[in-house]
Amino acid sequence: MVFSVAVAGASGYAGGELLRLLAGHPEFEVRTVTAHSNAGQRLIDVQPSLRSLAHLTLVDTTPQNLSGHDVVFVALPHGKSGEITAHLPAETLVVDCGADHRLVNSDDWAAFYGGDYFGAWTYGVPELPIGAGKQRDRLVGARRIAAPGCNASTVALALAPGIHAGVIEAQDLVAVLAVGPSGAGKSLKLPNLAAEILGSANPYAVGGTHRHIPEIVQSLRWAAAAGPADPTSAACASSPDATISFTPVIVPMSRGILATATARLVPGTSAAAVRAAWEDAYADEPFVHLLPDGHFPRTADVLGANTALIGLAVDEAAGRVVTITAIDNLVKGTAGAAIQSANIALGLTETLGLTMNGVAP
Amino acid sequence: MVFSVAVAGASGYAGGELLRLLAGHPEFEVRTVTAHSNAGQRLIDVQPSLRSLAHLTLVDTTPQNLSGHDVVFVALPHGKSGEITAHLPAETLVVDCGADHRLVNSDDWAAFYGGDYFGAWTYGVPELPIGAGKQRDRLVGARRIAAPGCNASTVALALAPGIHAGVIEAQDLVAVLAVGPSGAGKSLKLPNLAAEILGSANPYAVGGTHRHIPEIVQSLRWAAAAGPADPTSAACASSPDATISFTPVIVPMSRGILATATARLVPGTSAAAVRAAWEDAYADEPFVHLLPDGHFPRTADVLGANTALIGLAVDEAAGRVVTITAIDNLVKGTAGAAIQSANIALGLTETLGLTMNGVAP
Amino acid sequence: MVFSVAVAGASGYAGGELLRLLAGHPEFEVRTVTAHSNAGQRLIDVQPSLRSLAHLTLVDTTPQNLSGHDVVFVALPHGKSGEITAHLPAETLVVDCGADHRLVNSDDWAAFYGGDYFGAWTYGVPELPIGAGKQRDRLVGARRIAAPGCNASTVALALAPGIHAGVIEAQDLVAVLAVGPSGAGKSLKLPNLAAEILGSANPYAVGGTHRHIPEIVQSLRWAAAAGPADPTSAACASSPDATISFTPVIVPMSRGILATATARLVPGTSAAAVRAAWEDAYADEPFVHLLPDGHFPRTADVLGANTALIGLAVDEAAGRVVTITAIDNLVKGTAGAAIQSANIALGLTETLGLTMNGVAP
Amino acid sequence: MVFSVAVAGASGYAGGELLRLLAGHPEFEVRTVTAHSNAGQRLIDVQPSLRSLAHLTLVDTTPQNLSGHDVVFVALPHGKSGEITAHLPAETLVVDCGADHRLVNSDDWAAFYGGDYFGAWTYGVPELPIGAGKQRDRLVGARRIAAPGCNASTVALALAPGIHAGVIEAQDLVAVLAVGPSGAGKSLKLPNLAAEILGSANPYAVGGTHRHIPEIVQSLRWAAAAGPADPTSAACASSPDATISFTPVIVPMSRGILATATARLVPGTSAAAVRAAWEDAYADEPFVHLLPDGHFPRTADVLGANTALIGLAVDEAAGRVVTITAIDNLVKGTAGAAIQSANIALGLTETLGLTMNGVAP
Repeated sequence: MVFSVAVAGASGYAGGELLRLLAGHPEFEVRTVTAHSNAGQRLIDVQPSLRSLAHLTLVDTTPQNLSGHDVVFVALPHGKSGEITAHLPAETLVVDCGADHRLVNSDDWAAFYGGDYFGAWTYGVPELPIGAGKQRDRLVGARRIAAPGCNASTVALALAPGIHAGVIEAQDLVAVLAVGPSGAGKSLKLPNLAAEILGSANPYAVGGTHRHIPEIVQSLRWAAAAGPADPTSAACASSPDATISFTPVIVPMSRGILATATARLVPGTSAAAVRAAWEDAYADEPFVHLLPDGHFPRTADVLGANTALIGLAVDEAAGRVVTITAIDNLVKGTAGAAIQSANIALGLTETLGLTMNGVAP
Repeated sequence: MVFSVAVAGASGYAGGELLRLLAGHPEFEVRTVTAHSNAGQRLIDVQPSLRSLAHLTLVDTTPQNLSGHDVVFVALPHGKSGEITAHLPAETLVVDCGADHRLVNSDDWAAFYGGDYFGAWTYGVPELPIGAGKQRDRLVGARRIAAPGCNASTVALALAPGIHAGVIEAQDLVAVLAVGPSGAGKSLKLPNLAAEILGSANPYAVGGTHRHIPEIVQSLRWAAAAGPADPTSAACASSPDATISFTPVIVPMSRGILATATARLVPGTSAAAVRAAWEDAYADEPFVHLLPDGHFPRTADVLGANTALIGLAVDEAAGRVVTITAIDNLVKGTAGAAIQSANIALGLTETLGLTMNGVAP
Repeated sequence: MVFSVAVAGASGYAGGELLRLLAGHPEFEVRTVTAHSNAGQRLIDVQPSLRSLAHLTLVDTTPQNLSGHDVVFVALPHGKSGEITAHLPAETLVVDCGADHRLVNSDDWAAFYGGDYFGAWTYGVPELPIGAGKQRDRLVGARRIAAPGCNASTVALALAPGIHAGVIEAQDLVAVLAVGPSGAGKSLKLPNLAAEILGSANPYAVGGTHRHIPEIVQSLRWAAAAGPADPTSAACASSPDATISFTPVIVPMSRGILATATARLVPGTSAAAVRAAWEDAYADEPFVHLLPDGHFPRTADVLGANTALIGLAVDEAAGRVVTITAIDNLVKGTAGAAIQSANIALGLTETLGLTMNGVAP
Repeated sequence: MVFSVAVAGASGYAGGELLRLLAGHPEFEVRTVTAHSNAGQRLIDVQPSLRSLAHLTLVDTTPQNLSGHDVVFVALPHGKSGEITAHLPAETLVVDCGADHRLVNSDDWAAFYGGDYFGAWTYGVPELPIGAGKQRDRLVGARRIAAPGCNASTVALALAPGIHAGVIEAQDLVAVLAVGPSGAGKSLKLPNLAAEILGSANPYAVGGTHRHIPEIVQSLRWAAAAGPADPTSAACASSPDATISFTPVIVPMSRGILATATARLVPGTSAAAVRAAWEDAYADEPFVHLLPDGHFPRTADVLGANTALIGLAVDEAAGRVVTITAIDNLVKGTAGAAIQSANIALGLTETLGLTMNGVAP
């Protein structure tokens, strides 16, 4: 069976990456691509890399144009998808790559985004260890999925196993990320110009202001939760707690996130117990791989791939566990996570249309 | 049917790219990977981006290890493949990504490479217009194929249609290429260091010394030839003539070639006739696309893809036709061309295992 | 004596580079910095690299604010400086880094820029060989100077000696330039975004449409002219002729131009005669250096410097002389040329405030 | 008075940067440049950016060749300078840019470097707050100076004021650095190749193994020390303690370090008190600047400059003070620090030959 697909926001970077992956997916057929200011143009003129989709023309992003498909992927600025997806039928699988449906706590939304709150959908990071299982379990059969923020899922995947297993503390986490500017989209702002970024490392949202912070904390709370209750419900959102110092740094590579995320080692924990926590969490995962002791990933190794690579070290002198995680922000961080989650929701093979091999060098 | 495959030189960049593409090819199965100094290591430790091939271990590059496969891809430094492939059975399909079997004229070999000359194999640029057909015709059923040099095939694809159609002159061609350093392989030389290349544009092999020049000229002679005789035979190699000023410039991108190749317009030729020459040559090609008037390609649009994008302009004031051609040097320039040619040789669908969509941005 | 200086357009890249160089100039003191939308801001908030000028505040770009200085440097978009500089006193030295006063032929202006034509000022490329001397001679005592276009001066410096000496032909020149995006200024357009430029080579203005073409041709006509008449007068502008195919390619480095400029060798000319032409032209120049035979420059070698490095080769097989020229587009291509020309005009040591050493790597 | 200068290790990146700065220093004259494998070559052929030093030829790195100068700058691999500088007269000012003389504790040397220990020299970070003064005080009149490690001085400058003032804790520091590959020198190793670094973020020395860790800890211990005793003596080296998790990440820019260094806020400390600590430390410094609240530096802003820019934020939710510090690793991190320290030692104006303005963009 082939599922008909619409992509809203097809003129942006995330939309383009959805289309690149969907073009190679054997069970999805892209029928409709929508945009705002680019509506009316041929897709190939806006996304000249998508040669196999040269037959498509961008139409307006309206509920009418998005209706009538089996699956709708939405890649719109935050605040835009909440409105438009409210008009889509309940049986349509809708995967939102924006932020509108990620946070279960409306206070978090109000504090970090503001504007109308649209409620949380099933969070699209299948590998997150929660309770006795994985977030994957909640995605089966879902029809409303919130694909993760790229920085947020990177840090959550990096630290969740250790918190879940109780080998690292959830308080006083510190994460610093080297990120490529494609995560900022096609926004025409001075800091996004090539001349500003080439040859330079540029921090932003320093000091606890980045919008992905509540999303990270939410995932880590879930990972920390024990017991049978569903920790992803809003009621459970405030306990137990996690705190994180989070700093992203734009570096001159178009794609990729390299997260250095560290946590205090729970005193008395052996290095072997630490490693076992991550091994237990990811041993059978097709797209999240723990590297051997002494190996650490580079972002080039996951370029274009739906893979998260994690390197792990215990720094006894510093009293910290150090994780290094590499993902492609547009794939595992956004479009790949969306398609992987859609595969799960629809009962397809989870890896369909996705590759675990990066384009390196 | 699945063909068993060996890759010689699997630890390098070209070898790695062959493996990345082969890992996604439905009819090829990589059984053996060989290397020189890295023999004995796990492939994944040398090529950490190739997660799906983690089960493979590098063995020595010997005729014994390469024997017993249906297809052998060779990615060795020039001068190395000639020797080792001489020991492989005639019925094995051997595709050489090195230079040893590209030049039909032994004088060219002596002048630009030197050392033993191993004779020419069928040249692996299927789209080259030659006589009434394409080079593709010669690849059907071939068992010895010489994949092209990346710079050479880019310039040949850029200019051959105009020479073939007689709308540009074959003398006094000028080509300047912006190229990424992955084309130089893993050679540990000072000019290849990141600190030498970041933030800089660095020319090399200036003034007519680059080894791809005779290969370009050879392709363009073939494109110029008329009549029923096979122009790819050595006998035809010296006439008619083509001359080219060729300058490559290393720029700070890991992959990609952007060739600006210009030729004198044959006096009296209309712009429409010029465009028609390229349209006729590439209208039905899956991997070589002529862009509409006023559009020019970027290398990002073909990253990871087996696509060559060509933009075309007639500069009346300068009396020149200007072509801009973008390819990924490791894909359409090397590994993709090798696999595309192998597909043709074996009677498979030509596009198997290859994508026409680039990874952009 | 210290000259008081105003810089108009101080918030842009060219304006910032003027200020960086002026801050280190022992005879110039920057008193006034002007801007448009940034007026009212502290300079340091707009140009955070200019730590030594933290005391300055941007004011509006008006004739009033620019008046009362010994020297005014203007770095405004084309079409803007013509108007505003008309109000400045004749005895003030005005150096325009924009295009408004470069072209002696109003038809060229109309064809490539359009809008009001403001007439030509003394062209600010001192090293250009013209007649029995250099363009430097015309700059002595000048009070209205047009600093060159960065691409134009690079190509003119590259080819003028050969044309001047009659060893290369002025027709059918071909130049392809690898250029950094800082030349495009802070213009908020999609092609200038980092995500569009990182990892890619992007051509623009292909096929004879670039605005620097008439400026190049004008310089080369001057270099070709013989006899006592002033070739830089408008009357001489149309003869003898030069034609050039000119293609710029944006590459991922913030600054720099590497021009590969080639010309047909005049038949019968020896390689020694070719080299002698460039040696004669530049032997005594502090900022334009011909490299030894077999050496070619990289843009990194001139980063931040007012230096043009030229490598030269004769490609006998192609019948062309190939020149490779590296400059920093913001220094020798713009701000450095402006200050060097101002030094000459005012009778100061020509090299004051300028360095010939690049910041490499 | 002009001091005669020799530079040992003039063929490397640090040596080249010393020469670039020395060429613009009014009181230093470079008489001798030495190298190892490049001895006998013209300096300009090895360092083609140093046009003004074209008259110099590299000679062997021997005590004989280095003798007879007023000042000797040494830029050799660690383990090499200890030996050779032992032969230089006591009255010669020797500034070692290598690691051999930085650590006061021989156990640190043994643990992180190994081989012969040569003893500590006066540490060349003048701005470090120590006791009631600065490290500058110890540099006056010094004749043996150890220029700092680039990563080490960046982190020390970032955190020392807060530790000195008691507003942050010295334990559980976390620093993650985005660094350019020029810091690795011209070492011909695979991880230093451009194809490995372009388009990628690559961590190294993860988990507490980097050699700059003991140097950082040493500086921070000094900053923490109270009382009249000289904390830089070996006897004081072990108390009070500091611990740090330190992770460097290579990113695709040739130069620059952007350090995100965080520390636990001492409970009850106000944001104003935090800011006051850094303001007190650096208010009068020419080369270390605290940016206003809400401003954070980019490495481009200090390229080529001897400036360290520091941005500061208090993240109440995370309980951490976050510092962002940008330096040019080859200038303030190495060669600039060496020359600044030499200026102090010789009683010259501290800023001679150095600029505080960066080359941006």
